[in-house]
Amino acid sequence: MPEYKAPLRDIQFVLNDLLNSEQHYAGLEGCEQVSPDVLNAIVEEGARFAENTLHPLQKVGDEEGCQFEDGQVTTPTGFKEAFKLWGEGGWQALGVPEKDGGQGLPNSVGACISELAGSANWAFNMYTGLALAPVTCLLNGGTEEQKQRYLPKILTGESAGAMCLTEAHCGSDVGLLRTKAKPNGDGTYTLSGTKIFISGGEQDLTDNIVHAILARVEGAPEGTKGVSLFIAPKYWIEEDGSKGDFNHITCGSIEKKMGLKGSATCVMNYDGARAVLLGEEGRGLDIMFKLMNSARLGTALQGLSMSEASLQGSITYARERLQMRSLTGPKNPDGAADPIIVHPDVRRMLMTQKAFTEGSRAFVYWLAQLVDHENYGNEEQKKEAEDLLGMLTPIAKAFCTEVSQEVTNLGMQVLGGHGYISEHGMEQIVRDGRISTIYEGTTGIQALDLLGRKVMGSQGALLASVTKRIHKYCKANSDNESLQAFIEPMQALNKEWGEITMHVGEKTMSNPDELGAASVDYLMYSGYVILGYLWMQMANVAQREIAEGSTDPLYKSKVATAQFYFDRLLPRAQAHKAAIMAGAESTMSLTEEEFVFV
Amino acid sequence: MPEYKAPLRDIQFVLNDLLNSEQHYAGLEGCEQVSPDVLNAIVEEGARFAENTLHPLQKVGDEEGCQFEDGQVTTPTGFKEAFKLWGEGGWQALGVPEKDGGQGLPNSVGACISELAGSANWAFNMYTGLALAPVTCLLNGGTEEQKQRYLPKILTGESAGAMCLTEAHCGSDVGLLRTKAKPNGDGTYTLSGTKIFISGGEQDLTDNIVHAILARVEGAPEGTKGVSLFIAPKYWIEEDGSKGDFNHITCGSIEKKMGLKGSATCVMNYDGARAVLLGEEGRGLDIMFKLMNSARLGTALQGLSMSEASLQGSITYARERLQMRSLTGPKNPDGAADPIIVHPDVRRMLMTQKAFTEGSRAFVYWLAQLVDHENYGNEEQKKEAEDLLGMLTPIAKAFCTEVSQEVTNLGMQVLGGHGYISEHGMEQIVRDGRISTIYEGTTGIQALDLLGRKVMGSQGALLASVTKRIHKYCKANSDNESLQAFIEPMQALNKEWGEITMHVGEKTMSNPDELGAASVDYLMYSGYVILGYLWMQMANVAQREIAEGSTDPLYKSKVATAQFYFDRLLPRAQAHKAAIMAGAESTMSLTEEEFVFV
Repeated sequence: MPEYKAPLRDIQFVLNDLLNSEQHYAGLEGCEQVSPDVLNAIVEEGARFAENTLHPLQKVGDEEGCQFEDGQVTTPTGFKEAFKLWGEGGWQALGVPEKDGGQGLPNSVGACISELAGSANWAFNMYTGLALAPVTCLLNGGTEEQKQRYLPKILTGESAGAMCLTEAHCGSDVGLLRTKAKPNGDGTYTLSGTKIFISGGEQDLTDNIVHAILARVEGAPEGTKGVSLFIAPKYWIEEDGSKGDFNHITCGSIEKKMGLKGSATCVMNYDGARAVLLGEEGRGLDIMFKLMNSARLGTALQGLSMSEASLQGSITYARERLQMRSLTGPKNPDGAADPIIVHPDVRRMLMTQKAFTEGSRAFVYWLAQLVDHENYGNEEQKKEAEDLLGMLTPIAKAFCTEVSQEVTNLGMQVLGGHGYISEHGMEQIVRDGRISTIYEGTTGIQALDLLGRKVMGSQGALLASVTKRIHKYCKANSDNESLQAFIEPMQALNKEWGEITMHVGEKTMSNPDELGAASVDYLMYSGYVILGYLWMQMANVAQREIAEGSTDPLYKSKVATAQFYFDRLLPRAQAHKAAIMAGAESTMSLTEEEFVFV
Repeated sequence: MPEYKAPLRDIQFVLNDLLNSEQHYAGLEGCEQVSPDVLNAIVEEGARFAENTLHPLQKVGDEEGCQFEDGQVTTPTGFKEAFKLWGEGGWQALGVPEKDGGQGLPNSVGACISELAGSANWAFNMYTGLALAPVTCLLNGGTEEQKQRYLPKILTGESAGAMCLTEAHCGSDVGLLRTKAKPNGDGTYTLSGTKIFISGGEQDLTDNIVHAILARVEGAPEGTKGVSLFIAPKYWIEEDGSKGDFNHITCGSIEKKMGLKGSATCVMNYDGARAVLLGEEGRGLDIMFKLMNSARLGTALQGLSMSEASLQGSITYARERLQMRSLTGPKNPDGAADPIIVHPDVRRMLMTQKAFTEGSRAFVYWLAQLVDHENYGNEEQKKEAEDLLGMLTPIAKAFCTEVSQEVTNLGMQVLGGHGYISEHGMEQIVRDGRISTIYEGTTGIQALDLLGRKVMGSQGALLASVTKRIHKYCKANSDNESLQAFIEPMQALNKEWGEITMHVGEKTMSNPDELGAASVDYLMYSGYVILGYLWMQMANVAQREIAEGSTDPLYKSKVATAQFYFDRLLPRAQAHKAAIMAGAESTMSLTEEEFVFV
């Protein structure tokens, strides 16, 4: 694997220069404890854990994978010990309120730690992330008694968790699910059914596993309205928190996958498992809603994590590998050839990786702050954050993971044949990251949520919450001469965004397929605009520092990367616009049968 | 794996309707034997071999991979038997002249067979393709005696071959190679050195392996001018063709790779191997030239092969998988949900796969016909083919493989989570195809060849050979009302292509880095234009058939797919143009050190 070093300097830039973390936390009731010193200390400690404990297990996780025998799952060497350290270090409880037994740190702090742990070893990150699934469900839908009973051992890392939604015939279409819940008359239910693609459904890291399961109570209506949310541990948990009997939750098999081989993806059988209902019957998806949003942000973050890991690997290689001479004359005259970083096309690849990676970090960290506003802000902040997150969460999930495919594949490409062999670890990053555009709602599902539910569903109000913000920023900086190269194209795009939306909206009224045919290109267009908005801000901040005399090369790098983004990546928005404006006709004109001619 | 069915109907369309194969072969001296009936019979026989013999081994090739123990390589179960059948069926000798012991069929026939074999099992295709490496070198640079001695057993499949170029410190930069050749005084040489990434360098399929090796004769100048080409078999071959002593060619290890696991990628040691020189000392690369061109077309073809395999898998799944209802009302009211092919975004993915796959087929098959012209045509045909191939070969290699990454990843995406697990085989296609943008010259290397050597090197003459052709076609069809939707954008792009070239040329005069910074975007722009030209022609042919009363759904499908390409894919050329026009500044402005801030 490429050696992983936590990108602390860039994280500081985003947290301090771009997002003014100090003021952010100081202004939020319940977050005042996150002083700059505290934040720094946590992030540096997380960096050490990621670099020293998790990263050394990344390759072994891929090579050994998980093994399945007689219903038992064996995780790769070292995962169990690392999971124990993770729990003991308090990382699992980081974002859980103090009153519920956690560390009470805001979401945005957890996002940093997840980035670091994720770049170091995403397969491991699956177990810690999924352990939070029942936690989030309990915090949102559980009674005090339920929280006290099921949370504590997850927070210490003695137990883990799983989120059990997908069934063989039911992926994106949750309403089709068949797992049954039968009331026992004592307030508990008995579950029966089979779930697939359950990450961490079974493992050997922890004594117990708490499953959050979507199921249908006997007699419930069809579709999503009949879906309820349950908690069922692998071993029953008694009132006093002690471990009870085996609860008839078994693993039928694990999947062989393209990547994330260290993460067990299980077929889970519930053969009469005892479960408790969270909230009301038929309201399972309402409680899941917050979990789904945090899972989407968490997956956007996977895009960032994989991008960062790949960028580090390709930069290191490009500086070391000697091959051919620079077109402008030898740069390493004493060597047999120049390092390939001198070649403009290698630069193009590295700069593309850099612009998307650092842009994704700004994007995800910004949204994490908005989640802090949602959780800790005043009414006005909450409302604003809710609108922005409604609009931006699907964009972040799909865009940061889609561009991450490009970034990680460019990372391989920089290494040439050495990228394709396993030794350097670059191809593992591609394989591990490939799932990110699929799980937690595919790019297509995010795009329908964005354009259908959010933009059209709010009659443009949620879009306006974003475009107004961009407009305001451009206007506030209109007398800043050195920022005009960014402001002018951003203002034009911002206006165009609204026009495109109107156009699609009108066409959709006569043909609903127009919405679906435009949706992914609309999402990608939106993503390019948002990243442009963020790069404009980063350029502004950096230019200001340079004007004030800073010679920190980071600031020069930020201005150059912003310019690269506007020069060479942002123009892709126009190709997406053209695809949107072309409409649905040629996309939909073939009959199903006309697709096959062998 | 998705079941593979040879796309015979589409191949017929390209060969007959688009490329007028009958006239093509009838007009070439030495190709007259390829009547439509003969061509059909060969392609159908190849389809059966691909479907029934090669495809069943594709998954086992990935699962078992190649094993290495004590210097011996074991290929996956069934590969040895299939290789024997391949040789016995005469497939290995298909394109070799009759006078040299082959079947004497033109290159374009071999291209069809390679597509079929390649979609069915590209890992297997590596062995048969590499067996042709020494064959091509011998045909181009060998004496009659050398040909008679080394060719026969390769053509029957009793021996195979390997192309040995890359060394650990020397990939794209061939001039750096160090493998040494010492003259023995008897006309033979003794080779010593180590090569890496040698596909089929060692295997258990054949009794002997003939290596074509680039090496440097003692005292030869540095750089590419000192590079000579040698033939050295694993076991010496006596004058009468019989197998002699072991020739000190050993395999040190095999690589663990992302994909193509059934193909052994070897570290090869030459510890005093006896070798014969092909042609003159120091002229090795001149002889390799023709091999490099056919390897580039062969890799373009891998793009096509993998795209086709993925397209078939995703269409099949999209017609079977039931999930959610169509936005325009239920299409499968009796089922629990509609097949996902009704959803516009799934359509967008399938149509994108289809437009790139069928476009790539038209592109590669066209170039294969041009190679026929080069080999069998009159002087005028030869000259024209040479110019067109000089310009189009790097475009085909890079563009068909780059879009294939998109096609095969979309294929996975259509299957959602089921695409990420190995069971359905869609992820294997992505992994197997990922190398295609890397080997035989990366996309970046192709782009430098195109823009530097070909376009600028010919002062625009090679570009003009293509643009004139497009212009002529547009003009000849200017009174065709129904084709205007394609002709107008094509004429504009064709003109713009020249303007962009002028622009880059001028900038390059003052800064050579401008060429490198523009090169890959220039290549992709060119690829989109060429595919537009081909889709315009396919639409024309299809519209004509429809106008003449044909109700064959293939023709309707061609017109719709052409429209989709022009609507939704061709506009991407504009994003590439913008990147080109932005110039090198922001790409090159960071110093090497400024890339790292951890």
